[in-house]
Amino acid sequence: MKRTLRVGAIIKILTDSPGKIFPLQYFCEMFDAAKSSISEDMDFAAEAIDFTGTGTIETIPGAKGGVRFMAGITDEQLKNLQEEFCSRIKDSSRILGGGFLYTSDIMFDTGLVRRIAAVFARKFRDRGADYVATVETKGIPLAAMTAHYLNLPLVVIRREAKVSEGSTVSINYFSGSYDRVQKMSISKRAVVPGSSAIIIDDFMRGGGSTKGIADILSEFDVTVAGTGIAIASKTPDKKKISDYTAILYLGEVDETARTIEILPNNQIF
Amino acid sequence: MKRTLRVGAIIKILTDSPGKIFPLQYFCEMFDAAKSSISEDMDFAAEAIDFTGTGTIETIPGAKGGVRFMAGITDEQLKNLQEEFCSRIKDSSRILGGGFLYTSDIMFDTGLVRRIAAVFARKFRDRGADYVATVETKGIPLAAMTAHYLNLPLVVIRREAKVSEGSTVSINYFSGSYDRVQKMSISKRAVVPGSSAIIIDDFMRGGGSTKGIADILSEFDVTVAGTGIAIASKTPDKKKISDYTAILYLGEVDETARTIEILPNNQIF
Repeated sequence: MKRTLRVGAIIKILTDSPGKIFPLQYFCEMFDAAKSSISEDMDFAAEAIDFTGTGTIETIPGAKGGVRFMAGITDEQLKNLQEEFCSRIKDSSRILGGGFLYTSDIMFDTGLVRRIAAVFARKFRDRGADYVATVETKGIPLAAMTAHYLNLPLVVIRREAKVSEGSTVSINYFSGSYDRVQKMSISKRAVVPGSSAIIIDDFMRGGGSTKGIADILSEFDVTVAGTGIAIASKTPDKKKISDYTAILYLGEVDETARTIEILPNNQIF
Repeated sequence: MKRTLRVGAIIKILTDSPGKIFPLQYFCEMFDAAKSSISEDMDFAAEAIDFTGTGTIETIPGAKGGVRFMAGITDEQLKNLQEEFCSRIKDSSRILGGGFLYTSDIMFDTGLVRRIAAVFARKFRDRGADYVATVETKGIPLAAMTAHYLNLPLVVIRREAKVSEGSTVSINYFSGSYDRVQKMSISKRAVVPGSSAIIIDDFMRGGGSTKGIADILSEFDVTVAGTGIAIASKTPDKKKISDYTAILYLGEVDETARTIEILPNNQIF
């Protein structure tokens, strides 16, 4: 098999399973090729991926070593993503009243969500997390894509305990956005005590919901290894959690003038 | 830039955006190369993808034409996927009582879910659908990944109308699994009347929930272009919907003997 074909196939296989380590031997057998040839193939594969700016191919030394693809995004691609995201949010027809914006079409647009997930993958890749956690519903595609890129299991915290979740632990927390007490529920089977999770959500105002996720995880001694939010409101300035990474900041939503103030976070990395 | 690098980069770019048509000119400019060279690159890229069995690179003729990657899966890979899926379901510790099985860990395992989505992408790719639709919560990662592969927007039907969804339409339907009337709600902004959707869900027993999705979509004159279910129960034999594609069939769950009967669907394609 020719080098060009091998390199192409290697790229497809590695990028289909981000974060997964493949021993070089795996490809030696697949292509019936010597380790030295596959090793050179990897250099070409890494250079090709590097050219696209969508991640890196890395060599992990040691007995359990091999190669893996890690998803990423360049600073320039991030800037373009933020511009596109901002311009879609700015559309005044999104204003629903009560300070709410309609964003479901964006949060369920997998083309955009995939690239936001790549930002969080780059940001949190070395945090040593065991899970990606979110609370239903709108952040699930983003959390799932982030989990995929980080090769981690996804944990979805429910609003109501479901029979199909088995025994659950529930908490109540105060949501400033909804001005009422809300509930969260997590299956006892969902996490292993003593592990750590990256929290991903689509939106944060006062941080009540995000803190709720951290609180329910702490019931299982699961610590927070990082928090990624697609859109964080600029107000209130003092939030219930302090350490988070937002892609965009939402400023004033003026229902009379029909304007939406939205800004990129320029300090993600 | 060398051919090997160009082919590698082309594969990464095309497979990052399944279903999206890229004009050849896009790559000519990217690599400062002649159309004839890029055209030959595409043949190599197509051959490399073909080798992996994970989809195809296709040429679309005409003024709006170009090349695109379509996700797929080989019959052999499908068989392996079904075997792995079955063996994970068979674990007796999943039995929750009342005929329910704990499957959240599987439905939130993006490595497995991605491959199930590839099955549905292969099955439904030529149905001309405008959306992929699901009802919250457990099927969302699978539906999102299917939507990603088919380059379609995802529509998530909610259980309760939310203020962040704007005006909604709701229906009540009878769920046999839960033996009670359940509710579904969809934002009026979520779909364009007269379009069509592929329904994806994680589980189907009597089909009440799946028919509920079809019913609420029909309130907007949205027709069903196909239905994909990860696990369909063998009983009841007569379901509320007849045309669906399941990956696995769930037979008897014996709570005393602690056994789970689970079988692959051998007639998906």
